[in-house]
Amino acid sequence: MSELSVKHLLGIKYLNEKDIQLIFETADHFKEVINRSIKKVPSLRDITIANIFFENSTRTKLSFELAEKRLSADVINFSASQSSVKKGETLIDTVNNILSMKVDMVVMRHPNPGAGIFLSKHVNAAIVNAGDGAHEHPTQALLDSYSIREKLGNVAGKNVVIVGDILHSRVALSNIFALKLQGANVKVCGPKTLLPKHIESLGVTVETNLRKALHWCDVANMLRIQNERLDISYFPTTREYTQQYGVNKALLNSLDKEIVIMHPGPINRGVEITTDVADSHQSIILNQVENGVAIRMAVIYLLASKIK
Amino acid sequence: MSELSVKHLLGIKYLNEKDIQLIFETADHFKEVINRSIKKVPSLRDITIANIFFENSTRTKLSFELAEKRLSADVINFSASQSSVKKGETLIDTVNNILSMKVDMVVMRHPNPGAGIFLSKHVNAAIVNAGDGAHEHPTQALLDSYSIREKLGNVAGKNVVIVGDILHSRVALSNIFALKLQGANVKVCGPKTLLPKHIESLGVTVETNLRKALHWCDVANMLRIQNERLDISYFPTTREYTQQYGVNKALLNSLDKEIVIMHPGPINRGVEITTDVADSHQSIILNQVENGVAIRMAVIYLLASKIK
Amino acid sequence: MSELSVKHLLGIKYLNEKDIQLIFETADHFKEVINRSIKKVPSLRDITIANIFFENSTRTKLSFELAEKRLSADVINFSASQSSVKKGETLIDTVNNILSMKVDMVVMRHPNPGAGIFLSKHVNAAIVNAGDGAHEHPTQALLDSYSIREKLGNVAGKNVVIVGDILHSRVALSNIFALKLQGANVKVCGPKTLLPKHIESLGVTVETNLRKALHWCDVANMLRIQNERLDISYFPTTREYTQQYGVNKALLNSLDKEIVIMHPGPINRGVEITTDVADSHQSIILNQVENGVAIRMAVIYLLASKIK
Repeated sequence: MSELSVKHLLGIKYLNEKDIQLIFETADHFKEVINRSIKKVPSLRDITIANIFFENSTRTKLSFELAEKRLSADVINFSASQSSVKKGETLIDTVNNILSMKVDMVVMRHPNPGAGIFLSKHVNAAIVNAGDGAHEHPTQALLDSYSIREKLGNVAGKNVVIVGDILHSRVALSNIFALKLQGANVKVCGPKTLLPKHIESLGVTVETNLRKALHWCDVANMLRIQNERLDISYFPTTREYTQQYGVNKALLNSLDKEIVIMHPGPINRGVEITTDVADSHQSIILNQVENGVAIRMAVIYLLASKIK
Repeated sequence: MSELSVKHLLGIKYLNEKDIQLIFETADHFKEVINRSIKKVPSLRDITIANIFFENSTRTKLSFELAEKRLSADVINFSASQSSVKKGETLIDTVNNILSMKVDMVVMRHPNPGAGIFLSKHVNAAIVNAGDGAHEHPTQALLDSYSIREKLGNVAGKNVVIVGDILHSRVALSNIFALKLQGANVKVCGPKTLLPKHIESLGVTVETNLRKALHWCDVANMLRIQNERLDISYFPTTREYTQQYGVNKALLNSLDKEIVIMHPGPINRGVEITTDVADSHQSIILNQVENGVAIRMAVIYLLASKIK
Repeated sequence: MSELSVKHLLGIKYLNEKDIQLIFETADHFKEVINRSIKKVPSLRDITIANIFFENSTRTKLSFELAEKRLSADVINFSASQSSVKKGETLIDTVNNILSMKVDMVVMRHPNPGAGIFLSKHVNAAIVNAGDGAHEHPTQALLDSYSIREKLGNVAGKNVVIVGDILHSRVALSNIFALKLQGANVKVCGPKTLLPKHIESLGVTVETNLRKALHWCDVANMLRIQNERLDISYFPTTREYTQQYGVNKALLNSLDKEIVIMHPGPINRGVEITTDVADSHQSIILNQVENGVAIRMAVIYLLASKIK
């Protein structure tokens, strides 16, 4: 059987195209199992996984937890607010302590870019990056591409625009890596203050006019506006943002084709997209959530098979 | 086998008398199983239940969680303080996201009256209302009636007084519905400022004198004083409340019969009832807690059988 | 089969030497099982354990939770921040309510010395003290002695120095009881303001000079400086403490033998010990963490066998 080229999932940057296909095929299998109402597979009965979240994330954490439980893994949850971190312990101490209790895999969200990479060099366990600052969020990008593949049959050759705060978004960066690896054409769209300089070096094109970007694309991935990550003085007001970069039904209907609408959630309804757009048949937002569990089962399953 | 007339447990208001009997008989069965020290039955191996608590409630949450685990369901917990709710997500988005992960049943506590009813119209899962504002708390009323039936053999024909803040209490309202449905005589007792106008239209009588109410009743259900739900200016002080509506041992002993004392917990000892009353043989407070797990097992089991 | 002389683990003070040996032999067995990569034993399938933590403690709680899950017990977690405690409920009410839901064992951390002892007299369940104020932390002392036995073959006759804030440390007190019971020679070392008066009455010697203490010992157990438990005016500054009572590599190398370095964690790196000491081959800090799970499995298993 084929296997991943990596021992950790630290970012899409470290994967190759074959890895992504293997993850997708494995997710196909798990999705089929779930759809047959089989809630649990006994694959990982001997594996203990620690979910270590130094930042809040209900939805990502739930998705990982369900994926782990459906694989019959033993799960322990460790969240920063209850943690020794406050006592001044270093990240390595925290994780080494958890690993000393015979934990095999760590799923970690951390505010610092590169926290997972750092960890993978110092501890003896498989690391899954569940978001590291503004750096990467690889499972989100995998489930996004998987959802495009499911809806449109293929990712290669598709025109995908990522709309919003590209500068501070780990979702954007991981999506760019994943989409380019699979041969999609990628455009980013947003106000200039929220676009990184030299973003073209990643092989993407830039468009500040939303209407033009939507006319071009097959898929629009509408990022969440995350006020907490912004330097307030640079940013357009929420009202200005919505006027220029929000998608409503009238705008959608004015296009000459039906584009696919995505959003990593949670949606600010009426800001990035209106309610009728979020709930339209063009939206695959809930499919993204559903696919998230299957993708995470696949990632964990494939990494676990490299542990034994 | 018989089944419930409803697909959700949103309130006692939506149940009929047969539903209540079916829940009680099912609870009898589960209680017997637990008493034989069988901690788990494999009934719901294929069911995933999400406990979504937008208000704190250790005891109700623990009781539901134990009920679910003893039925071998998969359980995920989602509490508001860690939640996307803070990020401005709507209730429907939150729950739809959870359901997209293939969850079959939602147990929800929410500060807004009718939150569960609203949800049941918009999402595709069985909903159990674990308390919605000052509206209903149906499993509490079911376990209360079940505990009366266990102690006195029957609910029909019994005189039950509910003492306290009837105006703001979901426990009171659900109890009134449940007791009337089973043919009990129900009186409410408390200061006028804490009694809803027109409460008699629900078929209950009103008494502001505690001693008279206790003389009349077979069972006194002493509600918890919840300062957080009160408009402070209308309320008697805690001291005044205790003097007029608190039950102590001397008062109990002055009655010409032994009445049954109930309390939904947590008790403010020395306020609603004194410690010697709470711990006396007339009190069935801990039986209520014990029965809560069996009642919740029954409700979840019966609703789950309508899902498949 | 032999069994413990007690029904609860409230403190080392209540154990005898045979109890400790039985716990160690049972832990040996569980450790061997875990090392054979068997993550779960079906020993306690019928036991429900409540972890009730009125103080934060990520590491101890994780260790207990893993121990319980590996014994296949059902686990419910109750932490004070979500609890009815805030509503003014008494400790006995809280615990009685939990026990009414048919819980067999309570693992409790509480800020008040003697909270576990009090509880054991009033409720019908096995109690494991997971730390009660500045009083005892028996499982920590057991895993510490177990780790010394593992490293040096035996505890009897060994010279052990406990360094730090002896006055406020439950780890120190439990360690003194455990080490003396097993025939070790025990010295305490720290600034005078952090040593209890009359500590010699427990059979230990006192030394305020760290270098002398280290020259004498086989094992140095370096306690964590817990600023939160200190009366600030009496205390040396952190800088003064580190200068006089911190261990660095130069100091270790200046001794004429290799002593064993222990720390209950979490380490303030650079305060009690430097990073090179913590990570040296003389340190058994991570072994302590690993042994913690085996010791807690042993304690819970042995107490559970007295329930049935």
